[in-house]
Amino acid sequence: MDQIVYGIHPVEEALRSTHLQFQKILIGADKIHSHLQSVLDLAARRRVPIVHSTGQALDQMTKGALHQNIVGIINGIAYKSVEEILSRWKKEGTKALLIILDGIQDPQNLGSLIRTASGCGAHGMIIPRDRAAGITPAVIKASAGAAAYFPVARVVNLSTVIEKLKKEGLWVYGAAGEAEAPVYHTDFNVDLAIVIGAEEKGIRPLVRKKCDQLFSIPMRGPLPSFNASVAAGMILYEVMRQRSR
Amino acid sequence: MDQIVYGIHPVEEALRSTHLQFQKILIGADKIHSHLQSVLDLAARRRVPIVHSTGQALDQMTKGALHQNIVGIINGIAYKSVEEILSRWKKEGTKALLIILDGIQDPQNLGSLIRTASGCGAHGMIIPRDRAAGITPAVIKASAGAAAYFPVARVVNLSTVIEKLKKEGLWVYGAAGEAEAPVYHTDFNVDLAIVIGAEEKGIRPLVRKKCDQLFSIPMRGPLPSFNASVAAGMILYEVMRQRSR
Repeated sequence: MDQIVYGIHPVEEALRSTHLQFQKILIGADKIHSHLQSVLDLAARRRVPIVHSTGQALDQMTKGALHQNIVGIINGIAYKSVEEILSRWKKEGTKALLIILDGIQDPQNLGSLIRTASGCGAHGMIIPRDRAAGITPAVIKASAGAAAYFPVARVVNLSTVIEKLKKEGLWVYGAAGEAEAPVYHTDFNVDLAIVIGAEEKGIRPLVRKKCDQLFSIPMRGPLPSFNASVAAGMILYEVMRQRSR
Repeated sequence: MDQIVYGIHPVEEALRSTHLQFQKILIGADKIHSHLQSVLDLAARRRVPIVHSTGQALDQMTKGALHQNIVGIINGIAYKSVEEILSRWKKEGTKALLIILDGIQDPQNLGSLIRTASGCGAHGMIIPRDRAAGITPAVIKASAGAAAYFPVARVVNLSTVIEKLKKEGLWVYGAAGEAEAPVYHTDFNVDLAIVIGAEEKGIRPLVRKKCDQLFSIPMRGPLPSFNASVAAGMILYEVMRQRSR
């Protein structure tokens, strides 16, 4: 699905990102002041078509948000299906590594998680459709562009998907702060899907119940947890390390 | 040193953070509109004194930035000296773990790095004074509050400090993407300072030369690097793992 980005500064930022593909830019005013003009110059250099529209039309597109008479239409990212991710794994012939995010809401964290998953050679990521961040221009930027090509499936019900993965022969492990088994002693040398919980809340009880095994990252000092994307980096690093032996 | 935060939304955000200690809030207008009033109500609930000042005085404090007639004065974080960090290590009697950041500029990354270093039991962090993020309210927030107590030293010359650490018996290892030795095979079971380079640029050549050893994190896919704070999380995880055996 196509995405929109609006406001002078956000459009300018998006134009500077080489990871985003603009279809066009819509302008809602006849008078072009100097800052808007500099953004249009940038758009011209990036060969993005500029189309004259009306302020009213832009109001409708942005549902009344402050668009400053400029709206960019960006090529959206097509989500993959769980089946496509599974067939990618089977084609590669390596041990499965899927990441399941149970309700990550911060776009920065989601982008960072996708960048890390891609860099660790994961086959794909599964995120829930509701109460969780989806892939937006901000996420693509935070992922350093990885979200534009790394396979992500968006599903209605994580529990159903976990059942499906188990039937395909995958083990489902969950990262849970209170689990006694430390990540060091967990065997990741199996076909695997790893569940990462939301910031603060962790994995929801129903999803947790579906996990074959839980593990935790030992931690020192007064803080209760690592940042979700840093914790995921540590876990995926451990998977890489074990599989490199 | 005390820090200031200004503008209705930033002051409101800072008031909601339990990690920041306000000395007072300065108001620059006689007319208090409803949004400003709700911030003042929040300040009263948090028992922060509200002082009436003038718009002109606030202009001077914020050097002409858009302060919206509200400025908060927040207790600053006192940097530690390298000596204090070293004596903390000697008192604890554990293997040294210091983190040296060579030019991290993004406050989000700096905050995340401090949170991770604290959670991995590091003794302290050393950052350069110039061309690098210092500890600000934004960094404290991004660190989930860890930057308010974790020892950070800010120094003029990293190379001089590295020499000093070596004389104290520490080994200085640098994380460098192009190094051949993978992090897996690096022995972190020694008294250690780890150098992490800036986003994109990595460790500067002069600092790199001072390192006893370089190592890299193996990576897959088209991206050239992990996010700096995720990479640091992987490295500090590996230190914890090796030292837990």
